[in-house]
Amino acid sequence: MADHPVLKYVSAGAWSLVEPLFSPRAKDLLIKLIEFMENDVLPSEKLFHAQIPNSPETRWASIPPVLEKLKVKAKELGLWNLWLSGGDFQGMAGGEGGALSNLEYAVMAEIMGHSAILAPQATNCSAPDTGNMEVLARFGTPQQKEKYLVPLLKGEIRSSFSMTEYGVASSDATNLRNTTALPSSSGKLSVKGHKWWITGAGDPRNVIHIVLAVTDPKNPSPHKRHSLVLVDPRSKGVKIVRPLTVFGYDDAPEGHCEVVYDGVEIDVDSGVVGGKAGLGRGFEIVQARLGPGRLHHCMRSIGIASRALDIILLRVSDPNRKTFGKYLREHGTVLADIAHSRAEIDSARLLVLAAARRIDIGGAKGAMQDIGIAKFTVPSMALKVIDRAMQVHGAEGVSEDTPLAYYYASLRTLRYADGPDEVHIQQIGKNELKRVEGLRQRSEKVKKESDRLLRKDGKLKAKL
Amino acid sequence: MADHPVLKYVSAGAWSLVEPLFSPRAKDLLIKLIEFMENDVLPSEKLFHAQIPNSPETRWASIPPVLEKLKVKAKELGLWNLWLSGGDFQGMAGGEGGALSNLEYAVMAEIMGHSAILAPQATNCSAPDTGNMEVLARFGTPQQKEKYLVPLLKGEIRSSFSMTEYGVASSDATNLRNTTALPSSSGKLSVKGHKWWITGAGDPRNVIHIVLAVTDPKNPSPHKRHSLVLVDPRSKGVKIVRPLTVFGYDDAPEGHCEVVYDGVEIDVDSGVVGGKAGLGRGFEIVQARLGPGRLHHCMRSIGIASRALDIILLRVSDPNRKTFGKYLREHGTVLADIAHSRAEIDSARLLVLAAARRIDIGGAKGAMQDIGIAKFTVPSMALKVIDRAMQVHGAEGVSEDTPLAYYYASLRTLRYADGPDEVHIQQIGKNELKRVEGLRQRSEKVKKESDRLLRKDGKLKAKL
Amino acid sequence: MADHPVLKYVSAGAWSLVEPLFSPRAKDLLIKLIEFMENDVLPSEKLFHAQIPNSPETRWASIPPVLEKLKVKAKELGLWNLWLSGGDFQGMAGGEGGALSNLEYAVMAEIMGHSAILAPQATNCSAPDTGNMEVLARFGTPQQKEKYLVPLLKGEIRSSFSMTEYGVASSDATNLRNTTALPSSSGKLSVKGHKWWITGAGDPRNVIHIVLAVTDPKNPSPHKRHSLVLVDPRSKGVKIVRPLTVFGYDDAPEGHCEVVYDGVEIDVDSGVVGGKAGLGRGFEIVQARLGPGRLHHCMRSIGIASRALDIILLRVSDPNRKTFGKYLREHGTVLADIAHSRAEIDSARLLVLAAARRIDIGGAKGAMQDIGIAKFTVPSMALKVIDRAMQVHGAEGVSEDTPLAYYYASLRTLRYADGPDEVHIQQIGKNELKRVEGLRQRSEKVKKESDRLLRKDGKLKAKL
Amino acid sequence: MADHPVLKYVSAGAWSLVEPLFSPRAKDLLIKLIEFMENDVLPSEKLFHAQIPNSPETRWASIPPVLEKLKVKAKELGLWNLWLSGGDFQGMAGGEGGALSNLEYAVMAEIMGHSAILAPQATNCSAPDTGNMEVLARFGTPQQKEKYLVPLLKGEIRSSFSMTEYGVASSDATNLRNTTALPSSSGKLSVKGHKWWITGAGDPRNVIHIVLAVTDPKNPSPHKRHSLVLVDPRSKGVKIVRPLTVFGYDDAPEGHCEVVYDGVEIDVDSGVVGGKAGLGRGFEIVQARLGPGRLHHCMRSIGIASRALDIILLRVSDPNRKTFGKYLREHGTVLADIAHSRAEIDSARLLVLAAARRIDIGGAKGAMQDIGIAKFTVPSMALKVIDRAMQVHGAEGVSEDTPLAYYYASLRTLRYADGPDEVHIQQIGKNELKRVEGLRQRSEKVKKESDRLLRKDGKLKAKL
Repeated sequence: MADHPVLKYVSAGAWSLVEPLFSPRAKDLLIKLIEFMENDVLPSEKLFHAQIPNSPETRWASIPPVLEKLKVKAKELGLWNLWLSGGDFQGMAGGEGGALSNLEYAVMAEIMGHSAILAPQATNCSAPDTGNMEVLARFGTPQQKEKYLVPLLKGEIRSSFSMTEYGVASSDATNLRNTTALPSSSGKLSVKGHKWWITGAGDPRNVIHIVLAVTDPKNPSPHKRHSLVLVDPRSKGVKIVRPLTVFGYDDAPEGHCEVVYDGVEIDVDSGVVGGKAGLGRGFEIVQARLGPGRLHHCMRSIGIASRALDIILLRVSDPNRKTFGKYLREHGTVLADIAHSRAEIDSARLLVLAAARRIDIGGAKGAMQDIGIAKFTVPSMALKVIDRAMQVHGAEGVSEDTPLAYYYASLRTLRYADGPDEVHIQQIGKNELKRVEGLRQRSEKVKKESDRLLRKDGKLKAKL
Repeated sequence: MADHPVLKYVSAGAWSLVEPLFSPRAKDLLIKLIEFMENDVLPSEKLFHAQIPNSPETRWASIPPVLEKLKVKAKELGLWNLWLSGGDFQGMAGGEGGALSNLEYAVMAEIMGHSAILAPQATNCSAPDTGNMEVLARFGTPQQKEKYLVPLLKGEIRSSFSMTEYGVASSDATNLRNTTALPSSSGKLSVKGHKWWITGAGDPRNVIHIVLAVTDPKNPSPHKRHSLVLVDPRSKGVKIVRPLTVFGYDDAPEGHCEVVYDGVEIDVDSGVVGGKAGLGRGFEIVQARLGPGRLHHCMRSIGIASRALDIILLRVSDPNRKTFGKYLREHGTVLADIAHSRAEIDSARLLVLAAARRIDIGGAKGAMQDIGIAKFTVPSMALKVIDRAMQVHGAEGVSEDTPLAYYYASLRTLRYADGPDEVHIQQIGKNELKRVEGLRQRSEKVKKESDRLLRKDGKLKAKL
Repeated sequence: MADHPVLKYVSAGAWSLVEPLFSPRAKDLLIKLIEFMENDVLPSEKLFHAQIPNSPETRWASIPPVLEKLKVKAKELGLWNLWLSGGDFQGMAGGEGGALSNLEYAVMAEIMGHSAILAPQATNCSAPDTGNMEVLARFGTPQQKEKYLVPLLKGEIRSSFSMTEYGVASSDATNLRNTTALPSSSGKLSVKGHKWWITGAGDPRNVIHIVLAVTDPKNPSPHKRHSLVLVDPRSKGVKIVRPLTVFGYDDAPEGHCEVVYDGVEIDVDSGVVGGKAGLGRGFEIVQARLGPGRLHHCMRSIGIASRALDIILLRVSDPNRKTFGKYLREHGTVLADIAHSRAEIDSARLLVLAAARRIDIGGAKGAMQDIGIAKFTVPSMALKVIDRAMQVHGAEGVSEDTPLAYYYASLRTLRYADGPDEVHIQQIGKNELKRVEGLRQRSEKVKKESDRLLRKDGKLKAKL
Repeated sequence: MADHPVLKYVSAGAWSLVEPLFSPRAKDLLIKLIEFMENDVLPSEKLFHAQIPNSPETRWASIPPVLEKLKVKAKELGLWNLWLSGGDFQGMAGGEGGALSNLEYAVMAEIMGHSAILAPQATNCSAPDTGNMEVLARFGTPQQKEKYLVPLLKGEIRSSFSMTEYGVASSDATNLRNTTALPSSSGKLSVKGHKWWITGAGDPRNVIHIVLAVTDPKNPSPHKRHSLVLVDPRSKGVKIVRPLTVFGYDDAPEGHCEVVYDGVEIDVDSGVVGGKAGLGRGFEIVQARLGPGRLHHCMRSIGIASRALDIILLRVSDPNRKTFGKYLREHGTVLADIAHSRAEIDSARLLVLAAARRIDIGGAKGAMQDIGIAKFTVPSMALKVIDRAMQVHGAEGVSEDTPLAYYYASLRTLRYADGPDEVHIQQIGKNELKRVEGLRQRSEKVKKESDRLLRKDGKLKAKL
């Protein structure tokens, strides 16, 4: 293990396990990514924020120019679409990057997490576009790919995934019944519904919402009633009601919006993902979309937590910050907070890497247990580290003068997005219970032999 | 214990302990307060927010009219200046309310915490004015009382307390060295300094900042170098740099501001709290100010946590919110979250009540241990409850459609305001160690007698 | 609040709340108790242990003489049967002590918890005898009182409560179906069953087991099938199978035993608690027995935790125990552990006091919520404090050279005894949900008025 | 990844990362080990316990015969000395096994942890012998190797490591000053000291204590004053004072003993590890011994925690254990406990594997950070899982009818053995701080470039 610069970011233990599984190309890309982060992305953060206007009227109208510059540079460096995992995008214009294993991408996504707002967008690796591209690549018609997938791969447009319904307990997806795409008198489908938390719906570049809607309300199976339909947000009948706030942040110019679809007309062929063949497959596609996506969030969250720890280290070593005659870092409880943060980040990272490796070997379906564990473990871990970082900063830690409070707000949403912790926890518990039958057999075999040995030795007492 | 309406808010166990210590007048006031909260304050919350403009230009210019209406009503009902604890305000115009014990006020402040933004202001019980009034009442000159205390008691003006310095580790107050009020050529004191987190400095009604400044930089005792000086924010030389945000909230129109005092001229007699006699007493006065103030925050925080639990109960019982075929409240982990919240609120409230009672008996100084324990226990407890409330709401919980994320942000600041948790924790630990000498004596006496008994019984073995 | 010696044990905050509710007699008794603890009980602990033989053959045969001496002294001092809460024992030989309120007793029981093995026995305040005496006083026939209650009140005999069944999930009491007391051919009832965890069944002074047994297996109500029957452990058919261990402790000579009742014959009149009238009332009586009993355990546990904290303080101040050049107490994390222990003990104590006060006012039934909260909060709290105490002692902390590991083992059992934490937690959660209806009404009233205010001000937006 | 039986024990995610690093031989050995565990070791547990006498007189006199049978079988299967990591033992009689990487051994040690009392002894992989063998192999003279190392490698004798001193804060090793091996009048060294917690000192097979003793008290470096000396416990002057208990367990026949060395005479050549050349190297050797040893404990602890989870799964699925009409596994909080246990075990295992891999690449010294993190993380994690397992068992969980309470007691000792958690936590914190210099450079470079970009864009504000 030569002195790869990744060791500035990732623990030596983790790297020692995954390095043998990295291709030489991936190792090189990783070096390039780290240099791009340090030389270009991180120095652009303040300018990015400065280029977003304050006024509620103008802050949604344009994209900070610095972001487009970063995209150009990332493409030049080959740091583009790193998340692409191969097959589905072969031969597609814009789809030539990627081809990394999930394990390789996991490390890169963590590094990108150190600038979680800019880096994923700069490299075209940001949600919800990545998931939407996967949907289109795997399930879209050739025309749909041409129209939406190609410009998405090139980073020319943006997209939304429109699932959560207003006023509905959406963590149980079968509750999503109020958005419909049903035949209208014109022979087209008319999309009606009230959604919210539609990320990216405020973005001026957004030209496509992938909307989960009921197309077959009478289907006996509740999992076959839905389809994914494609709605251009500039169509008649689409109303962006408001950007929602997350702990007071509006995330302009992307936003998380409340959206009403009030009778938007679409064709089945062009407007249903997969055309006619896609009807009724909404749930199936959503499920396929979520697996790696959940893990991508986890990867980046490790990076965010790592940056928070870096920020702690710098703060507590600041000679201007002595209290009661000591550097902050000389206080035993501060050292303990650092050590716990280090241990928690390191172990969470390993969970994520193991899950990524499992996807590489057995596909997202085979990795559901490992992904689920990462899903409910990583955000809580990261929140803990960020909270400690806020605390060593006092008031500054919750203000706009550090990125910490914003990180906290963002990561807090991951404890319910794509399924709340509670749902994943219950699911992991149930999965574990599937081992019981095997355990019982083993345990009975052991008991039988144990009793035989005891009896032979005269030690088996008659049961009362 | 008749069925006092307070039992809708406070556990029967707590009430059973404190009820015998309540005067009939306090019991009556409590009933009036609860009615005022339910009939007037809580229904005014949405309108209050709606009356604050969105635009960065106008949101600091005026106070929502509904607040002034509530203040009028509160005065009529005698629910005014409830925090006044007597002596210091006797015979003073506006100071006739109050006269409650700290224990009585603790319960009322908790009730007010159910509408933490509106109720304290509506009843003239809000920080930082309450602390500032205490400072002026106990340490101000007659002229200072006339000019500032009387209108504060009447709720006509607002004030700030200007202590935290920009770029300084202010949790160790001896670090506060960069704001000075030193003689200028004109013979006056010239106030120079860069402060931040000055609550209320954005408020258009604010006419007075009480500023901690060095007036005697060479004094051999670091605790005698400071005085409190009075600065009118409309003076020449005062610059409100910006309102700071807490998470993404700016708390307009009050705000927490960064403020530069760039050579504001004041007279010693009128401009130093206490006039000449107040010179060098800054630290002493700050210390006296902080005790009950810390506990007031805790009292209200119990109310905020209680409201969060109420919000949980309503949410998980919403028949429209079933997931996986069950009401949310039927999930075992939800019930467990409710039970833990209940237990944590109840025990934290008792800590606060015990500390309040201690102040009543032995003054704030005698109650430092109890206040300190409440100070580091209550905000963390409340944050935990609010976090659970956010989680059962999913995305809605972090948005502006519930008060939860705002509560979280506000309470998060209490983990470092008036001393970070860590400082209080270390102090409580040190206080406990003062018991060691007594313990050692007791322990040695016990050992001696124990050895005597063992020896008598032939059971004392010679030490190896 | 004069300087009562209780302040060496109980926080000033707590005492300030309860002192006004203490009778002069209780205050005096408390002083006597503290002196008895320090002069007699604590110095006897080592001798008590030394007087228990090591050999498995002899350690169950006798009671350490020092204990009987302490009992004599306690009686002389009037520190006898302090737990008696009045009415039920009036005019009964031996029942003249007591008459304290539950609140007064709570403080005394905490003090006794500082020597949890000796003090309760020395003062005739130990489980399971206290609960058994209540059962006999309230539900026994005059003959049963004469035969068992009087000598129990005098401390001449001991007793067991025989409920948990071997191999049965006893936390749901309706599962207890395998022990029966059914008519035999002789016309008597024949008691058959296999119980375990029968505390005190190893004690040579034990002459009575109160056994929960099915007497009416066909009763349609599962809560009316059981009675409590009285079995003399010296009867034919009683087999003490083994003393069970808790961690590695056998608690000789009291023990927690596995017991088989193999056809013990009893009369209905003398052998069923309450005689014929007691048939079918087993569950009802058990329920009545458990309320205050649960709280007694909590009271003592506070005392155990307090002693553990005292032990921490002494250890970390030992000048022979410096590490890395510092007293242990100078390490920031040690101070933090102390502070957290202090806060946790203080808040748990207040929960217990509030629950005791509630029993005084509304009876055990009215206090179920407060008792339940204490029940699941206190043991976990105490375990945490003890664990910290073990940790600062290193290996010594888990050995027989401190009482800590034994405390840990004992308190660990309280997390499932008399109902596991989980059952209480779910119950408290369900109780809280009973508030929903009231909350909903209040919330709807507030919303209506809020909408009216908004409408009046032109701020109510039409719902989408 | 074929269906290796290890997947019954180790998560698929972890196996997917380490499988490529396993040699074919290691994979085969792993299969053999699993079969040996299931067919031989686990069924022998009860007999092992039954073969230990109860009486304090006889329980230390002999070794359960079943253990010797297992050792014979393990040798036949090649499952012997698996911990040997190569070089140091080459060409040595008995040293031919092993030659596994630390990563390979880590997985095997975890599997052995499923029967933590028997399996390590059965395969000659148990502490303290493994560490002692390393000491002798690396630092012993040829004669010392012949006399002690060879029979240890063959499993014919046992040994102790005698370090902790009675009455001394041994977590700071420089405090160990009271045991000396100084020249006596006879020209030999006379070993005098009072040690305790000497594991294995009760074992009748024990013929050698490796004792840390001061041999050069005046050496200016406190780390060069000690040597390791070899004491035969059957020598004149050795007194085994008592076996100590851990939560009431005495661990007979091995024991953890208090030992007095009262003038035991030894030769420098034969009696100092390394002979004359070993004088003054005590601390150096101890340090070298501890690294991998700490990790071995962690490896086994993962196995213990895994077994506890298996025990949970079986218990909550027992149809005879329904409460309130449900299987225990149907309660949401039980499922949550299972899921958290699964996640915590999986992430702790990955930390251990990463640390083991680091040792393989960079030696124990290079892996100190990873080992340290595992050291303070794993035991606490395992205790949490075991505690949950006890809780679902109620009283049975703390008794001798499950192995859980014994596991708890054993693992609790790991939170201070080989350095208390606190020491490791502070050390990890300090290690992290070494990154600050690099971070500061990076951060300053980023800031400079950020300012350049802002300035270019006209967005850099003059600092106040």
